Amino acid sequence: MNYHVLTLFPEMIEQGLNTSILGRAREKNLITLQTTNIRDFSTNKHLKVDDYPYGGGAGMVMQAEPVYKAYEHVKEQMGSEKPLRVIYLTPQGKVFTQELAEEFAKEENLVFLCGHYEGIDERVLDRIVTDHVSIGDYVLTGGELPSMVMMDAISRLVPGVLNNDVSAEIESFHDNLLEYPQYTRPEEFMGEKVPEVLLSGHHGNIDKWRREQSVIRTAQRRPDLLKGANLTDKEKRIAREACAGDVEEATEI
Amino acid sequence: MNYHVLTLFPEMIEQGLNTSILGRAREKNLITLQTTNIRDFSTNKHLKVDDYPYGGGAGMVMQAEPVYKAYEHVKEQMGSEKPLRVIYLTPQGKVFTQELAEEFAKEENLVFLCGHYEGIDERVLDRIVTDHVSIGDYVLTGGELPSMVMMDAISRLVPGVLNNDVSAEIESFHDNLLEYPQYTRPEEFMGEKVPEVLLSGHHGNIDKWRREQSVIRTAQRRPDLLKGANLTDKEKRIAREACAGDVEEATEI
Repeated sequence: MNYHVLTLFPEMIEQGLNTSILGRAREKNLITLQTTNIRDFSTNKHLKVDDYPYGGGAGMVMQAEPVYKAYEHVKEQMGSEKPLRVIYLTPQGKVFTQELAEEFAKEENLVFLCGHYEGIDERVLDRIVTDHVSIGDYVLTGGELPSMVMMDAISRLVPGVLNNDVSAEIESFHDNLLEYPQYTRPEEFMGEKVPEVLLSGHHGNIDKWRREQSVIRTAQRRPDLLKGANLTDKEKRIAREACAGDVEEATEI
Repeated sequence: MNYHVLTLFPEMIEQGLNTSILGRAREKNLITLQTTNIRDFSTNKHLKVDDYPYGGGAGMVMQAEPVYKAYEHVKEQMGSEKPLRVIYLTPQGKVFTQELAEEFAKEENLVFLCGHYEGIDERVLDRIVTDHVSIGDYVLTGGELPSMVMMDAISRLVPGVLNNDVSAEIESFHDNLLEYPQYTRPEEFMGEKVPEVLLSGHHGNIDKWRREQSVIRTAQRRPDLLKGANLTDKEKRIAREACAGDVEEATEI
Protein backbone atom coordinates (compact mmCIF):
# COMPACT_ATOMS: atom_id res chain seq x y z
CA MET A 1 0.00 0.00 0.00
CA ASN A 2 1.43 3.38 -1.03
CA TYR A 3 0.15 6.51 0.68
CA HIS A 4 0.71 9.99 -0.69
CA VAL A 5 -0.33 12.95 1.40
CA LEU A 6 -0.81 16.49 0.08
CA THR A 7 -0.48 18.73 3.11
CA LEU A 8 0.81 22.00 4.55
CA PHE A 9 2.35 20.06 7.47
CA PRO A 10 4.35 17.13 6.08
CA GLU A 11 6.43 16.69 9.24
CA MET A 12 3.30 16.10 11.31
CA ILE A 13 2.27 13.22 9.05
CA GLU A 14 5.77 11.75 8.94
CA GLN A 15 6.16 11.68 12.70
CA GLY A 16 2.69 10.46 13.48
CA LEU A 17 2.97 7.24 11.55
CA ASN A 18 6.37 6.15 12.77
CA THR A 19 5.42 4.34 15.93
CA SER A 20 4.52 0.79 16.79
CA ILE A 21 2.83 -1.41 14.22
CA LEU A 22 2.83 1.16 11.42
CA GLY A 23 6.50 2.00 11.93
CA ARG A 24 7.37 -1.67 11.53
CA ALA A 25 5.14 -2.00 8.48
CA ARG A 26 7.00 0.89 6.87
CA GLU A 27 10.37 -0.70 7.68
CA LYS A 28 9.19 -3.90 6.03
CA ASN A 29 7.93 -1.89 3.02
CA LEU A 30 4.44 -3.27 3.45
CA ILE A 31 3.34 0.34 3.39
CA THR A 32 5.11 3.39 2.02
CA LEU A 33 4.39 7.00 2.82
CA GLN A 34 5.25 10.08 0.81
CA THR A 35 4.28 13.62 1.64
CA THR A 36 4.10 16.62 -0.67
CA ASN A 37 4.05 20.12 0.75
CA ILE A 38 1.34 22.10 -1.02
CA ARG A 39 3.20 25.29 -0.11
CA ASP A 40 6.06 24.27 -2.43
CA PHE A 41 3.64 24.87 -5.31
CA SER A 42 2.62 28.38 -4.35
CA THR A 43 3.11 30.90 -7.12
CA ASN A 44 3.09 33.75 -4.62
CA LYS A 45 6.41 35.28 -3.57
CA HIS A 46 5.40 35.04 0.10
CA LEU A 47 4.46 31.37 -0.47
CA LYS A 48 0.87 32.16 0.39
CA VAL A 49 -1.61 29.39 -0.48
CA ASP A 50 -4.84 30.93 0.78
CA ASP A 51 -7.01 33.98 0.13
CA TYR A 52 -10.32 35.52 1.20
CA PRO A 53 -13.53 33.71 0.23
CA TYR A 54 -15.55 35.18 -2.63
CA GLY A 55 -18.86 36.40 -1.30
CA GLY A 56 -17.38 37.28 2.08
CA GLY A 57 -17.38 35.47 5.38
CA ALA A 58 -14.91 34.53 8.07
CA GLY A 59 -11.65 32.69 7.50
CA MET A 60 -9.49 31.97 4.50
CA VAL A 61 -9.84 29.48 1.67
CA MET A 62 -7.00 27.43 0.15
CA GLN A 63 -6.43 28.30 -3.51
CA ALA A 64 -7.04 25.88 -6.34
CA GLU A 65 -3.77 26.25 -8.18
CA PRO A 66 -1.14 25.16 -5.62
CA VAL A 67 -3.34 22.18 -4.71
CA TYR A 68 -3.72 21.20 -8.34
CA LYS A 69 0.00 21.52 -9.02
CA ALA A 70 0.87 19.43 -5.96
CA TYR A 71 -1.54 16.77 -7.19
CA GLU A 72 -0.03 16.81 -10.70
CA HIS A 73 3.41 16.41 -9.14
CA VAL A 74 2.31 13.33 -7.19
CA LYS A 75 0.63 11.85 -10.25
CA GLU A 76 3.81 12.27 -12.28
CA GLN A 77 5.98 10.81 -9.53
CA MET A 78 3.80 7.74 -9.29
CA GLY A 79 3.67 7.26 -13.04
CA SER A 80 0.39 5.48 -12.53
CA GLU A 81 -1.66 4.83 -15.64
CA LYS A 82 -4.78 4.16 -13.61
CA PRO A 83 -6.79 7.10 -12.36
CA LEU A 84 -5.77 7.91 -8.78
CA ARG A 85 -8.07 7.59 -5.83
CA VAL A 86 -7.90 10.96 -4.07
CA ILE A 87 -9.48 11.27 -0.63
CA TYR A 88 -10.35 14.73 0.63
CA LEU A 89 -10.78 14.90 4.41
CA THR A 90 -13.80 17.06 5.18
CA PRO A 91 -16.74 17.21 7.56
CA GLN A 92 -18.79 17.41 4.33
CA GLY A 93 -17.95 13.82 3.45
CA LYS A 94 -19.20 10.28 3.70
CA VAL A 95 -18.59 8.97 7.23
CA PHE A 96 -15.56 6.70 7.54
CA THR A 97 -16.30 3.20 8.87
CA GLN A 98 -14.50 -0.12 9.15
CA GLU A 99 -16.31 -1.19 5.99
CA LEU A 100 -14.88 1.77 4.09
CA ALA A 101 -11.43 0.97 5.53
CA GLU A 102 -11.74 -2.53 4.05
CA GLU A 103 -12.66 -1.06 0.68
CA PHE A 104 -9.71 1.36 0.66
CA ALA A 105 -7.31 -1.39 1.81
CA LYS A 106 -7.79 -3.10 -1.57
CA GLU A 107 -6.20 -0.16 -3.43
CA GLU A 108 -2.55 -0.05 -4.39
CA ASN A 109 -2.22 3.73 -4.06
CA LEU A 110 -4.17 6.24 -2.01
CA VAL A 111 -3.75 10.01 -2.14
CA PHE A 112 -4.94 12.08 0.83
CA LEU A 113 -5.63 15.77 0.43
CA CYS A 114 -5.53 17.74 3.69
CA GLY A 115 -7.30 21.08 3.83
CA HIS A 116 -6.95 23.89 6.34
CA TYR A 117 -8.75 27.12 7.23
CA GLU A 118 -12.26 27.25 5.76
CA GLY A 119 -11.54 24.55 3.20
CA ILE A 120 -10.29 24.42 -0.37
CA ASP A 121 -11.57 26.14 -3.52
CA GLU A 122 -14.39 23.95 -4.80
CA ARG A 123 -13.15 23.98 -8.40
CA VAL A 124 -10.00 21.97 -7.69
CA LEU A 125 -11.96 19.56 -5.48
CA ASP A 126 -14.38 18.96 -8.37
CA ARG A 127 -11.45 18.24 -10.63
CA ILE A 128 -9.29 15.85 -8.60
CA VAL A 129 -11.16 14.40 -5.60
CA THR A 130 -12.77 10.96 -5.93
CA ASP A 131 -13.85 10.49 -2.29
CA HIS A 132 -15.01 13.10 0.23
CA VAL A 133 -14.56 11.43 3.62
CA SER A 134 -15.27 12.54 7.19
CA ILE A 135 -13.93 10.59 10.17
CA GLY A 136 -16.79 11.79 12.37
CA ASP A 137 -19.24 14.56 13.16
CA TYR A 138 -16.84 17.07 14.70
CA VAL A 139 -14.78 19.99 13.39
CA LEU A 140 -10.98 19.75 13.24
CA THR A 141 -8.18 22.18 12.47
CA GLY A 142 -7.13 20.43 9.26
CA GLY A 143 -7.07 17.19 7.35
CA GLU A 144 -3.79 15.90 8.81
CA LEU A 145 -5.09 14.07 11.88
CA PRO A 146 -8.03 12.50 10.03
CA SER A 147 -5.75 11.30 7.22
CA MET A 148 -3.49 9.70 9.84
CA VAL A 149 -6.51 8.05 11.44
CA MET A 150 -7.57 6.67 8.07
CA MET A 151 -4.08 5.43 7.21
CA ASP A 152 -3.88 3.72 10.60
CA ALA A 153 -7.22 1.94 10.18
CA ILE A 154 -6.49 0.95 6.56
CA SER A 155 -2.91 -0.21 7.20
CA ARG A 156 -4.01 -2.75 9.78
CA LEU A 157 -5.99 -4.47 7.03
CA VAL A 158 -3.04 -4.70 4.63
CA PRO A 159 -1.85 -8.34 4.61
CA GLY A 160 1.23 -8.87 6.79
CA VAL A 161 0.93 -5.66 8.81
CA LEU A 162 -0.61 -7.34 11.86
CA ASN A 163 1.40 -10.32 13.10
CA ASN A 164 -1.66 -12.19 14.01
CA ASP A 165 -4.45 -12.54 11.50
CA VAL A 166 -6.79 -13.70 14.23
CA SER A 167 -6.24 -10.41 15.98
CA ALA A 168 -7.71 -8.39 13.15
CA GLU A 169 -10.58 -10.78 12.80
CA ILE A 170 -11.93 -11.05 16.33
CA GLU A 171 -11.67 -7.36 17.02
CA SER A 172 -14.41 -4.85 17.65
CA PHE A 173 -17.30 -4.64 15.20
CA HIS A 174 -17.29 -8.33 14.52
CA ASP A 175 -20.95 -9.27 14.13
CA ASN A 176 -21.82 -5.69 15.11
CA LEU A 177 -21.06 -6.33 18.79
CA LEU A 178 -18.57 -4.47 20.95
CA GLU A 179 -15.69 -6.46 22.34
CA TYR A 180 -15.92 -8.18 25.75
CA PRO A 181 -13.81 -6.99 28.71
CA GLN A 182 -10.22 -8.21 28.88
CA TYR A 183 -8.12 -9.22 31.90
CA THR A 184 -4.46 -10.14 32.37
CA ARG A 185 -1.96 -10.84 35.18
CA PRO A 186 -2.12 -10.56 38.15
CA GLU A 187 -5.21 -12.51 39.20
CA GLU A 188 -5.94 -9.92 41.85
CA PHE A 189 -5.59 -6.16 41.44
CA MET A 190 -6.54 -3.89 44.37
CA GLY A 191 -8.85 -6.55 45.73
CA GLU A 192 -10.57 -7.19 42.38
CA LYS A 193 -10.30 -10.71 41.04
CA VAL A 194 -10.43 -11.84 37.43
CA PRO A 195 -13.85 -13.40 36.64
CA GLU A 196 -13.55 -17.07 37.58
CA VAL A 197 -14.79 -18.45 34.31
CA LEU A 198 -11.70 -17.05 32.57
CA LEU A 199 -9.46 -19.12 34.84
CA SER A 200 -11.51 -22.30 34.36
CA GLY A 201 -9.82 -23.48 31.17
CA HIS A 202 -13.28 -24.46 29.88
CA HIS A 203 -13.32 -22.94 26.42
CA GLY A 204 -17.03 -23.46 25.81
CA ASN A 205 -17.92 -21.54 28.97
CA ILE A 206 -15.37 -18.83 28.27
CA ASP A 207 -16.77 -18.24 24.76
CA LYS A 208 -20.30 -18.15 26.15
CA TRP A 209 -19.38 -15.65 28.87
CA ARG A 210 -17.52 -13.43 26.42
CA ARG A 211 -20.37 -13.43 23.93
CA GLU A 212 -22.83 -12.50 26.71
CA GLN A 213 -20.56 -9.69 27.91
CA SER A 214 -20.37 -8.38 24.33
CA VAL A 215 -24.15 -8.37 24.06
CA ILE A 216 -24.59 -6.61 27.43
CA ARG A 217 -21.92 -4.02 26.67
CA THR A 218 -23.33 -3.27 23.23
CA ALA A 219 -26.84 -2.93 24.67
CA GLN A 220 -25.59 -0.51 27.33
CA ARG A 221 -23.24 1.59 25.24
CA ARG A 222 -24.22 1.31 21.59
CA PRO A 223 -27.76 -0.08 21.29
CA ASP A 224 -27.83 1.37 17.76
CA LEU A 225 -25.43 -1.39 16.67
CA LEU A 226 -27.68 -4.24 17.83
CA LYS A 227 -30.04 -3.88 14.89
CA GLY A 228 -27.28 -5.29 12.68
CA ALA A 229 -26.32 -8.15 15.03
CA ASN A 230 -27.48 -11.76 14.78
CA LEU A 231 -28.82 -12.43 18.26
CA THR A 232 -30.50 -15.59 19.54
CA ASP A 233 -33.77 -15.17 21.44
CA LYS A 234 -31.91 -15.60 24.71
CA GLU A 235 -29.39 -12.96 23.71
CA LYS A 236 -32.18 -10.58 22.77
CA ARG A 237 -33.60 -11.01 26.27
CA ILE A 238 -30.18 -10.32 27.82
CA ALA A 239 -29.83 -7.22 25.64
CA ARG A 240 -33.29 -5.94 26.60
CA GLU A 241 -32.50 -6.39 30.29
CA ALA A 242 -29.14 -4.66 29.92
CA CYS A 243 -30.67 -1.49 28.48
CA ALA A 244 -33.82 -1.67 30.58
CA GLY A 245 -33.31 1.94 31.63
CA ASP A 246 -33.78 3.05 28.06
CA VAL A 247 -37.22 1.78 27.16
CA GLU A 248 -37.26 3.11 23.63
CA GLU A 249 -34.01 1.41 22.68
CA ALA A 250 -35.05 -1.79 24.45
CA THR A 251 -38.27 -2.18 22.51
CA GLU A 252 -36.39 -1.93 19.24
CA ILE A 253 -34.26 -5.01 19.93
CA MET B 1 -7.44 23.90 29.27
CA ASN B 2 -4.89 21.41 30.56
CA TYR B 3 -4.47 18.10 28.80
CA HIS B 4 -2.68 15.13 30.32
CA VAL B 5 -2.08 12.07 28.21
CA LEU B 6 -1.21 8.63 29.56
CA THR B 7 0.45 6.81 26.68
CA LEU B 8 3.18 4.44 25.53
CA PHE B 9 4.15 6.93 22.78
CA PRO B 10 4.52 10.40 24.34
CA GLU B 11 6.64 11.74 21.49
CA MET B 12 3.87 11.02 19.00
CA ILE B 13 1.43 13.13 21.01
CA GLU B 14 3.93 15.95 21.55
CA GLN B 15 4.76 16.28 17.88
CA GLY B 16 1.25 15.94 16.60
CA LEU B 17 -0.11 18.94 18.45
CA ASN B 18 2.64 21.37 17.67
CA THR B 19 1.45 22.72 14.36
CA SER B 20 -0.73 25.60 13.27
CA ILE B 21 -3.52 26.77 15.53
CA LEU B 22 -2.81 24.36 18.38
CA GLY B 23 0.90 25.17 18.41
CA ARG B 24 0.07 28.86 18.78
CA ALA B 25 -2.50 28.13 21.49
CA ARG B 26 0.17 26.24 23.42
CA GLU B 27 2.63 29.12 23.04
CA LYS B 28 0.00 31.48 24.40
CA ASN B 29 -0.69 29.04 27.26
CA LEU B 30 -4.35 28.84 26.33
CA ILE B 31 -3.83 25.11 26.36
CA THR B 32 -1.15 23.05 28.05
CA LEU B 33 -0.15 19.50 27.28
CA GLN B 34 1.64 17.00 29.47
CA THR B 35 2.37 13.41 28.61
CA THR B 36 3.15 10.55 30.97
CA ASN B 37 4.76 7.38 29.68
CA ILE B 38 2.94 4.40 31.13
CA ARG B 39 6.06 2.30 30.57
CA ASP B 40 7.87 4.36 33.24
CA PHE B 41 5.57 2.73 35.76
CA SER B 42 6.25 -0.85 34.78
CA THR B 43 7.40 -3.02 37.68
CA ASN B 44 8.90 -5.53 35.28
CA LYS B 45 12.67 -5.47 34.74
CA HIS B 46 12.17 -5.60 30.97
CA LEU B 47 9.70 -2.69 31.29
CA LYS B 48 6.92 -4.87 29.96
CA VAL B 49 3.42 -3.44 30.41
CA ASP B 50 1.34 -6.17 28.75
CA ASP B 51 0.59 -9.85 29.20
CA TYR B 52 -1.59 -12.61 27.72
CA PRO B 53 -5.36 -12.34 28.21
CA TYR B 54 -6.96 -14.60 30.80
CA GLY B 55 -9.22 -17.08 29.08
CA GLY B 56 -7.06 -17.15 25.95
CA GLY B 57 -7.40 -15.38 22.63
CA ALA B 58 -5.19 -13.44 20.27
CA GLY B 59 -3.11 -10.42 21.20
CA MET B 60 -1.89 -8.94 24.47
CA VAL B 61 -3.64 -6.90 27.16
CA MET B 62 -2.16 -3.91 28.99
CA GLN B 63 -1.78 -4.57 32.71
CA ALA B 64 -3.73 -2.71 35.35
CA GLU B 65 -0.88 -1.72 37.64
CA PRO B 66 1.35 0.45 35.42
CA VAL B 67 -1.74 2.25 34.12
CA TYR B 68 -2.99 2.88 37.65
CA LYS B 69 0.39 4.14 38.85
CA ALA B 70 0.71 6.48 35.87
CA TYR B 71 -2.75 7.83 36.68
CA GLU B 72 -1.85 8.34 40.36
CA HIS B 73 1.28 10.20 39.27
CA VAL B 74 -0.75 12.58 37.09
CA LYS B 75 -3.29 13.13 39.85
CA GLU B 76 -0.54 14.01 42.30
CA GLN B 77 1.18 16.36 39.83
CA MET B 78 -2.05 18.21 39.20
CA GLY B 79 -2.88 18.49 42.89
CA SER B 80 -6.50 18.72 41.85
CA GLU B 81 -9.06 18.35 44.62
CA LYS B 82 -11.85 17.73 42.17
CA PRO B 83 -12.24 14.24 40.74
CA LEU B 84 -10.49 14.04 37.39
CA ARG B 85 -12.27 13.46 34.14
CA VAL B 86 -10.47 10.52 32.53
CA ILE B 87 -11.27 9.68 28.92
CA TYR B 88 -10.43 6.21 27.65
CA LEU B 89 -10.24 5.99 23.86
CA THR B 90 -11.91 2.79 22.76
CA PRO B 91 -14.16 1.49 19.98
CA GLN B 92 -16.35 0.35 22.91
CA GLY B 93 -17.23 3.91 23.79
CA LYS B 94 -19.81 6.61 23.25
CA VAL B 95 -19.33 8.15 19.79
CA PHE B 96 -17.52 11.51 19.84
CA THR B 97 -19.46 14.40 18.30
CA GLN B 98 -19.22 18.19 18.17
CA GLU B 99 -21.73 18.29 21.02
CA LEU B 100 -19.46 16.15 23.19
CA ALA B 101 -16.50 18.37 22.22
CA GLU B 102 -18.46 21.36 23.53
CA GLU B 103 -19.13 19.56 26.79
CA PHE B 104 -15.46 18.60 27.29
CA ALA B 105 -14.32 22.14 26.40
CA LYS B 106 -15.94 23.37 29.63
CA GLU B 107 -13.53 21.32 31.77
CA GLU B 108 -10.33 22.74 33.24
CA ASN B 109 -8.41 19.46 33.07
CA LEU B 110 -8.81 16.43 30.85
CA VAL B 111 -6.88 13.19 31.16
CA PHE B 112 -6.66 10.91 28.12
CA LEU B 113 -5.78 7.25 28.53
CA CYS B 114 -4.41 5.61 25.38
CA GLY B 115 -4.58 1.84 25.12
CA HIS B 116 -2.73 -0.49 22.77
CA TYR B 117 -2.88 -4.13 21.73
CA GLU B 118 -6.17 -5.81 22.69
CA GLY B 119 -7.03 -3.14 25.25
CA ILE B 120 -6.43 -2.59 28.96
CA ASP B 121 -7.29 -4.77 31.95
CA GLU B 122 -10.92 -4.00 32.77
CA ARG B 123 -10.30 -3.61 36.50
CA VAL B 124 -8.22 -0.45 36.16
CA LEU B 125 -10.67 0.99 33.63
CA ASP B 126 -13.50 0.42 36.14
CA ARG B 127 -11.48 2.26 38.75
CA ILE B 128 -10.27 5.38 36.96
CA VAL B 129 -12.15 5.98 33.69
CA THR B 130 -15.08 8.42 33.69
CA ASP B 131 -15.75 8.49 29.92
CA HIS B 132 -15.34 5.72 27.36
CA VAL B 133 -15.19 7.52 24.01
CA SER B 134 -14.85 6.32 20.41
CA ILE B 135 -14.06 8.74 17.58
CA GLY B 136 -15.82 6.52 15.05
CA ASP B 137 -16.74 2.99 14.02
CA TYR B 138 -13.34 1.78 12.89
CA VAL B 139 -10.44 -0.04 14.57
CA LEU B 140 -7.16 1.76 15.23
CA THR B 141 -3.72 0.72 16.47
CA GLY B 142 -3.94 2.66 19.71
CA GLY B 143 -5.51 5.57 21.52
CA GLU B 144 -2.91 8.16 20.48
CA LEU B 145 -4.44 9.37 17.21
CA PRO B 146 -8.00 9.50 18.59
CA SER B 147 -6.83 11.45 21.66
CA MET B 148 -5.11 13.94 19.32
CA VAL B 149 -8.30 14.21 17.27
CA MET B 150 -10.29 14.92 20.42
CA MET B 151 -7.81 17.49 21.71
CA ASP B 152 -7.87 19.23 18.34
CA ALA B 153 -11.68 19.42 18.24
CA ILE B 154 -11.93 20.50 21.88
CA SER B 155 -9.13 23.08 21.72
CA ARG B 156 -10.83 24.99 18.92
CA LEU B 157 -13.70 25.64 21.33
CA VAL B 158 -11.49 27.02 24.09
CA PRO B 159 -11.95 30.82 24.17
CA GLY B 160 -9.11 32.67 22.43
CA VAL B 161 -7.76 29.70 20.49
CA LEU B 162 -9.42 30.67 17.21
CA ASN B 163 -8.68 34.23 16.14
CA ASN B 164 -12.08 34.69 14.77
CA ASP B 165 -15.09 33.76 16.86
CA VAL B 166 -17.29 33.89 13.82
CA SER B 167 -15.17 31.20 12.26
CA ALA B 168 -16.04 28.66 14.92
CA GLU B 169 -19.67 29.61 14.77
CA ILE B 170 -20.51 29.41 11.11
CA GLU B 171 -18.65 26.18 10.56
CA SER B 172 -19.94 22.76 9.66
CA PHE B 173 -22.78 21.27 11.69
CA HIS B 174 -24.42 24.59 12.25
CA ASP B 175 -28.14 23.89 12.11
CA ASN B 176 -27.28 20.31 11.11
CA LEU B 177 -26.38 21.35 7.57
CA LEU B 178 -23.05 20.77 5.84
CA GLU B 179 -21.11 23.84 4.79
CA TYR B 180 -21.58 25.41 1.33
CA PRO B 181 -18.79 25.33 -1.28
CA GLN B 182 -16.05 27.95 -0.99
CA TYR B 183 -14.20 29.84 -3.71
CA THR B 184 -11.25 32.21 -3.69
CA ARG B 185 -8.90 33.98 -6.14
CA PRO B 186 -8.52 33.76 -9.09
CA GLU B 187 -11.96 34.26 -10.62
CA GLU B 188 -11.17 31.70 -13.27
CA PHE B 189 -9.33 28.42 -12.72
CA MET B 190 -8.83 26.05 -15.66
CA GLY B 191 -11.83 27.53 -17.41
CA GLU B 192 -14.10 27.29 -14.36
CA LYS B 193 -15.52 30.55 -13.10
CA VAL B 194 -16.60 31.43 -9.57
CA PRO B 195 -20.43 31.36 -9.31
CA GLU B 196 -21.59 34.84 -10.30
CA VAL B 197 -23.72 35.49 -7.27
CA LEU B 198 -20.58 35.45 -5.07
CA LEU B 199 -19.14 38.34 -7.09
CA SER B 200 -22.37 40.35 -6.97
CA GLY B 201 -21.81 42.03 -3.62
CA HIS B 202 -25.49 41.41 -2.84
CA HIS B 203 -25.38 39.90 0.62
CA GLY B 204 -28.99 38.78 0.68
CA ASN B 205 -28.56 36.79 -2.51
CA ILE B 206 -25.23 35.38 -1.37
CA ASP B 207 -26.72 34.14 1.90
CA LYS B 208 -29.65 32.62 0.06
CA TRP B 209 -27.39 30.84 -2.44
CA ARG B 210 -25.13 29.51 0.30
CA ARG B 211 -28.04 28.24 2.37
CA GLU B 212 -29.45 26.44 -0.68
CA GLN B 213 -26.07 24.90 -1.47
CA SER B 214 -25.85 23.67 2.13
CA VAL B 215 -29.28 22.06 1.86
CA ILE B 216 -28.46 20.40 -1.47
CA ARG B 217 -25.09 19.14 -0.28
CA THR B 218 -26.50 17.75 2.95
CA ALA B 219 -29.32 16.02 1.07
CA GLN B 220 -26.82 14.44 -1.32
CA ARG B 221 -24.11 13.45 1.11
CA ARG B 222 -25.59 13.16 4.57
CA PRO B 223 -29.39 12.92 4.36
CA ASP B 224 -29.33 11.47 7.89
CA LEU B 225 -28.48 14.95 9.20
CA LEU B 226 -31.55 16.62 7.67
CA LYS B 227 -33.92 15.20 10.28
CA GLY B 228 -32.33 17.58 12.79
CA ALA B 229 -32.37 20.65 10.52
CA ASN B 230 -34.97 23.42 10.50
CA LEU B 231 -35.98 23.59 6.87
CA THR B 232 -38.63 25.78 5.28
CA ASP B 233 -41.11 24.08 2.97
CA LYS B 234 -39.20 25.37 -0.02
CA GLU B 235 -35.94 24.00 1.39
CA LYS B 236 -37.57 20.64 2.00
CA ARG B 237 -38.55 20.55 -1.65
CA ILE B 238 -35.00 21.42 -2.72
CA ALA B 239 -33.67 18.68 -0.44
CA ARG B 240 -36.09 16.10 -1.82
CA GLU B 241 -35.09 16.96 -5.37
CA ALA B 242 -31.38 16.79 -4.51
CA CYS B 243 -31.62 13.24 -3.21
CA ALA B 244 -34.25 12.14 -5.70
CA GLY B 245 -32.12 9.12 -6.59
CA ASP B 246 -32.54 7.81 -3.09
CA VAL B 247 -36.27 7.46 -2.69
CA GLU B 248 -36.21 6.11 0.85
CA GLU B 249 -34.16 9.01 2.18
CA ALA B 250 -36.21 11.52 0.19
CA THR B 251 -39.52 10.42 1.63
CA GLU B 252 -38.20 10.90 5.16
CA ILE B 253 -37.50 14.61 4.67
